[in-house]
Amino acid sequence: MKITSKRKIVRYDSGAFEETNDAIAEEFPLTLYINDVEFATLVCSPDHLEELIMGFLASEGAIRKYSDIKSMNLDDHGGFCHINLNSDISTDHFTYSKRILGSCCGKSRQFYFQSDVDTAKVSMSKTTITPEQCTTLMRDMQDTSTIFKETGGIHNASLGTPEEVIVHRGDIGRHNALDKLYGYCIENRIPVNDKVLVFSGRISSEVLTKAAKIGVGIVLSKSAPTDLAIRLAEDLNITAIGFIRGDSFNIYSHPWRVVQKNAEI
Amino acid sequence: MKITSKRKIVRYDSGAFEETNDAIAEEFPLTLYINDVEFATLVCSPDHLEELIMGFLASEGAIRKYSDIKSMNLDDHGGFCHINLNSDISTDHFTYSKRILGSCCGKSRQFYFQSDVDTAKVSMSKTTITPEQCTTLMRDMQDTSTIFKETGGIHNASLGTPEEVIVHRGDIGRHNALDKLYGYCIENRIPVNDKVLVFSGRISSEVLTKAAKIGVGIVLSKSAPTDLAIRLAEDLNITAIGFIRGDSFNIYSHPWRVVQKNAEI
Repeated sequence: MKITSKRKIVRYDSGAFEETNDAIAEEFPLTLYINDVEFATLVCSPDHLEELIMGFLASEGAIRKYSDIKSMNLDDHGGFCHINLNSDISTDHFTYSKRILGSCCGKSRQFYFQSDVDTAKVSMSKTTITPEQCTTLMRDMQDTSTIFKETGGIHNASLGTPEEVIVHRGDIGRHNALDKLYGYCIENRIPVNDKVLVFSGRISSEVLTKAAKIGVGIVLSKSAPTDLAIRLAEDLNITAIGFIRGDSFNIYSHPWRVVQKNAEI
Repeated sequence: MKITSKRKIVRYDSGAFEETNDAIAEEFPLTLYINDVEFATLVCSPDHLEELIMGFLASEGAIRKYSDIKSMNLDDHGGFCHINLNSDISTDHFTYSKRILGSCCGKSRQFYFQSDVDTAKVSMSKTTITPEQCTTLMRDMQDTSTIFKETGGIHNASLGTPEEVIVHRGDIGRHNALDKLYGYCIENRIPVNDKVLVFSGRISSEVLTKAAKIGVGIVLSKSAPTDLAIRLAEDLNITAIGFIRGDSFNIYSHPWRVVQKNAEI
């Protein structure tokens, strides 16, 4: 499926109007049914939908591994997906039945006060990273983000080792981009403990929680974190690094994972 | 209440680490009870909370005007607010009981397929704007956004006439910034039909829907819209303008509201 479309727009520049074509990001509603019960509707960029669904289900605690899914029937025309799980899980137990809204999707308080503590793990990662690796990973992620350059409306996320980006995903929804990465790891049984998450957007408590659910020890961002995200990062033993611009950045928590290159030799 | 806090961070720049203080945006969870029933938890920047609550309630269709609120008891220490409405409204009717997630807060599909059509009005606004007014309003909004400059983590929104900004609000949540403006208009009985909404973030379908609920005819953004947002803007007779940078911008819908200065004389 296409995640952008062409539209006719009117462009104004320095006194002159002109009709032109522009690439616009699609918003695609995808409704999930678990064991025949409506569970959630995700509004997303319509690519890597299976990964998105798996990452979302894992993030919600509905699955832990690929084999927890008995069947997945995706209608990517109508925007519906019927999922059968092997466990006889009651959707009543899912936290989405709670009326909770967040600054973005509202999971910070859910985590902070409720049951997300079961799925967001304290990181045991011993992986370290050098300043040069931080700035290089961010640059590589930005270079890969062709859709962003085209439409300007996509959140970008990459997962990599300190040495290189392994997989890159984009989505109009910040959580979706992270869930697609999570789904990719589940589907391909990628160990995440030694990996680094690289993200284009702000580190909210919700993004930090998602990183903890995925299981990484280091989060790199182009933008700022919130206070709650930093406190969560401290609690969850995650190194949160933001404002990576050119050859500089800020370390907000657990700076011990950032080592000078010569310290590694 | 403070919407930023100071934290000790480690700054890396061109080979050197340094401990320094940084201003970080707060994330504040605020739980609303309507007529003693838990309704929603907003995660927000903790300022202008009464406006936020009013704007959110209006946006959800729970109130239409200031006098619909019988009482509002805000505990801004614990993050709770008890609201009594004059109407005997059942919270079961609110759409938040539906399991719907969006690319941000998940209201696009809600609007697109369900009852938000009652609160998101087709704009009857005849207000026009010149290119110079578009770029000036955006510049003025950005100049006012001191918190953004300080922390880099805030969405900014202003409401104004084509001539000038009237009110400016910021929040870590994009919807909250818009709800604060909406609440300001309700509390101060500001007519919105002739106003312009200026927004720092992307125009998602959810943002466009919010603009329609507030009732403006023109939305200005620094960023890109989505395809669904443009289609909604077309349906709702709203002029959506994005990518306002320097002396240029894109008009995505209803360009008739943008007039050359000399055409107005």
